[in-house]
Amino acid sequence: MEASSTASETAGENEFDLIIIGAGSGNTIPDERFADLKIAIIDDGEHFGGTCLNVGCIPTKMFVRPAEIVHGARSAQHLGVTAPDVRANWAAVRDRIFTRIDAISNSGEEYRRSGEPNIQLVRERVRFISDHELETDSGRRLRAERIIIAAGSRSVELDPLPWSQRVITNAEALRLEQLPQHITVIGGGAIGCEFANIFHGFGAKTVQLVRSMPLKSVDSEVAATFAQVADWDLRTGTEVTAAHETEAGVELTLSDGSQMITDLVLVAAGRIPNSDRLEATAAGFDLHEDGRIVVDDYQRVLRGGEPVPGVWALGDISSSHQLKHVANEEARVVAHNVAAEFSGEQLRRNTLGPVPTAVFSNPEVAAFGESLSQAQARGADAFAVRHDYGATAWGWALEDETSFCKLVVDRENGKLLGAQIIGPDAAILLQPLIQAASQGQSVRGLARQQYWPHPAATEIIENTLLRAEAQLAAH
Amino acid sequence: MEASSTASETAGENEFDLIIIGAGSGNTIPDERFADLKIAIIDDGEHFGGTCLNVGCIPTKMFVRPAEIVHGARSAQHLGVTAPDVRANWAAVRDRIFTRIDAISNSGEEYRRSGEPNIQLVRERVRFISDHELETDSGRRLRAERIIIAAGSRSVELDPLPWSQRVITNAEALRLEQLPQHITVIGGGAIGCEFANIFHGFGAKTVQLVRSMPLKSVDSEVAATFAQVADWDLRTGTEVTAAHETEAGVELTLSDGSQMITDLVLVAAGRIPNSDRLEATAAGFDLHEDGRIVVDDYQRVLRGGEPVPGVWALGDISSSHQLKHVANEEARVVAHNVAAEFSGEQLRRNTLGPVPTAVFSNPEVAAFGESLSQAQARGADAFAVRHDYGATAWGWALEDETSFCKLVVDRENGKLLGAQIIGPDAAILLQPLIQAASQGQSVRGLARQQYWPHPAATEIIENTLLRAEAQLAAH
Repeated sequence: MEASSTASETAGENEFDLIIIGAGSGNTIPDERFADLKIAIIDDGEHFGGTCLNVGCIPTKMFVRPAEIVHGARSAQHLGVTAPDVRANWAAVRDRIFTRIDAISNSGEEYRRSGEPNIQLVRERVRFISDHELETDSGRRLRAERIIIAAGSRSVELDPLPWSQRVITNAEALRLEQLPQHITVIGGGAIGCEFANIFHGFGAKTVQLVRSMPLKSVDSEVAATFAQVADWDLRTGTEVTAAHETEAGVELTLSDGSQMITDLVLVAAGRIPNSDRLEATAAGFDLHEDGRIVVDDYQRVLRGGEPVPGVWALGDISSSHQLKHVANEEARVVAHNVAAEFSGEQLRRNTLGPVPTAVFSNPEVAAFGESLSQAQARGADAFAVRHDYGATAWGWALEDETSFCKLVVDRENGKLLGAQIIGPDAAILLQPLIQAASQGQSVRGLARQQYWPHPAATEIIENTLLRAEAQLAAH
Repeated sequence: MEASSTASETAGENEFDLIIIGAGSGNTIPDERFADLKIAIIDDGEHFGGTCLNVGCIPTKMFVRPAEIVHGARSAQHLGVTAPDVRANWAAVRDRIFTRIDAISNSGEEYRRSGEPNIQLVRERVRFISDHELETDSGRRLRAERIIIAAGSRSVELDPLPWSQRVITNAEALRLEQLPQHITVIGGGAIGCEFANIFHGFGAKTVQLVRSMPLKSVDSEVAATFAQVADWDLRTGTEVTAAHETEAGVELTLSDGSQMITDLVLVAAGRIPNSDRLEATAAGFDLHEDGRIVVDDYQRVLRGGEPVPGVWALGDISSSHQLKHVANEEARVVAHNVAAEFSGEQLRRNTLGPVPTAVFSNPEVAAFGESLSQAQARGADAFAVRHDYGATAWGWALEDETSFCKLVVDRENGKLLGAQIIGPDAAILLQPLIQAASQGQSVRGLARQQYWPHPAATEIIENTLLRAEAQLAAH
């Protein structure tokens, strides 16, 4: 493959064929299709490799597992199991996790530094000078005909709680020297719910403050069930109105007028895209109100509503879904589209859907698409069905009384508009529904087209589908 | 609906329109389509409702869950979790389970006894006198134009080990007064592997004797992995050659010449269909060599290769799969076909496939279709790919080093010929593959047609599919 005019033909160590800003999903792009391009990868993160690997999904899930075992053993008395002394050792778990992850991060960085002659690693923060030019903190100016912006997002700082040793994000929380005795998690999104569960499981006294309801973007019934089942001190409709840091901890005044002292505050009140740190406005790129860079279906960055030639974006900095699996798919689209310039292939649109989300808390939650109220709000003729874990053999085995699967179905064509699961293994139970919805299948016949091994948890899905089908037939 | 000539029009309390022998899956058949028929349901089981409910899948899975929690907590030191005193209380678990199950069984029996005027319950053993006539142990003769045989199977007795207080089947094992100190499980099929895991998890010293390899019908690599990972005393290639029951227990002589004493022997060496107890030969029905009643694709019982009018069979007594989800599907086919006589609908063939099987042991195993060697033995141009749990984020969270997913793929059309999973949540992870295979889909594009939420366990399936696709593309 030959670039029309490659940087190797032009002068200057600061001239590239392709610059990738961000080494998370962006780092998956350079492959054999780009072997002839001179590439710069820019990552100013403390740990190389992006949020998911270093401070996001992966280490979080690795903390979830021990917490889940402890919780499972501790709360199984109704199943006939006692475990008076079960506990998870914070320091041991942390060291195991980061020994593994830091090694991956380090070897990834080393490979990018010296593994391929055409790729150069830049470990500095950059900002846009113009649409194809960047300046690093040290004053180096980098230019490329093609720029991929994959610089991610960061935790939002809350007004009364400036970052400090005691007011931290999930990134610091994962690497804490020791387990706090008392932690307050602020926020009811995936991160807040996952970290409240982790700290509770490890034995910290855990308070979670949620402005309205947890996981409210999913479904109100799911949100209410989550708030009811979570067995730490989860307070809905509660905000911090004032905070004061002392020697002993952080004194918080809450919106209900109460006060409390906590060792640590983990703020998980949302994430903002890093477009401001990149000074994307200097290049004139269009931004959404929340700061995300505007892209079209091809992942092309827009300016004045038109694609800027050679500039692409993906992941949290531009996506409406702050999810690693979405960023990865966007990276595949961008890689294809950048390579298309040379291969002559058509540009690819990003049309994959629906987008599932999973919250690895306790209870676990997974969902895609619309809730019934969302579907009805846009005028869809939809209905919802619900089936409880407790109405299946597996639910009996769990003695489960709170978990369920809900489907939102288009009455016209029987297609799945949405699905929500709250309960054990929600994230994996959702997959047959994702598969059917991705293929545009109706729920009609879906349950009976296939076997569902008895008495596996998937019978919950089978039975919810049968309910949906019965509801369709009733009309 | 009107039967051409209903028994209510003819004389005699022993004349029926429909007799159903067996109240397991057979008991699901009477519904509103048969409200005008005079029906007898025959069940001579100690507990009403069949194997699955009373001594099979359901109570077994309910014992598996506590065992799994104990095992999970006990074996999580490498994850940073300690649980020195975790234990499951046999009597408490047993009582919880059978309080629930016996109530279901009793209310099911009560409903069949007096819930519907057209249905009569016969709690006796029966045998065939002719193809449409049965005799009960008490000498009552029952006749019907339509007979559905759903009388199931029972545990095989082993020659050197006649049934006794100390030599028992899974049925007795589930209701044991107390946990044995030392139990020997004979057999490497699903039941043997599940019960060895249960007793080990509850704290009994457990030996499992397997003639060749465990779960050998699945795949040799899976079998070998199971034998290696199971953390009770599993002895492959070992049989009992002699047994002697004493006051202290059962003295076993094994094929390796060694001897041991055990408190209890659980024989799970296979199950035989109950056609002999029904004296199916007296009606001239065709039998397979293993005693199963021969049926055609419509679940019609054959005699001399031809369907016997009005006689149907389903479940373990006739099926090549001794699985509850298969029996249920066969019951749906039979119900449709019996009702077709009145509704005028076409008879339905039973063509649903592939058939998954799940073994809720530790490790858990789930599979469908062919292993690579089975596919190749019949001349298929097939290949297999394998992806380890350990190569996904979730595998990292488990610190898993032994679990994997394997796919067997038809090189010609990319279709799944088989799938095997050994590891946590195998049974539910299999479902997206069952769904694709049931719909005749190729693995081409399957992984990338849908999102797989990160970092859920389903990424194992996604990655195995990608390997399969790469292998297809390489040719």
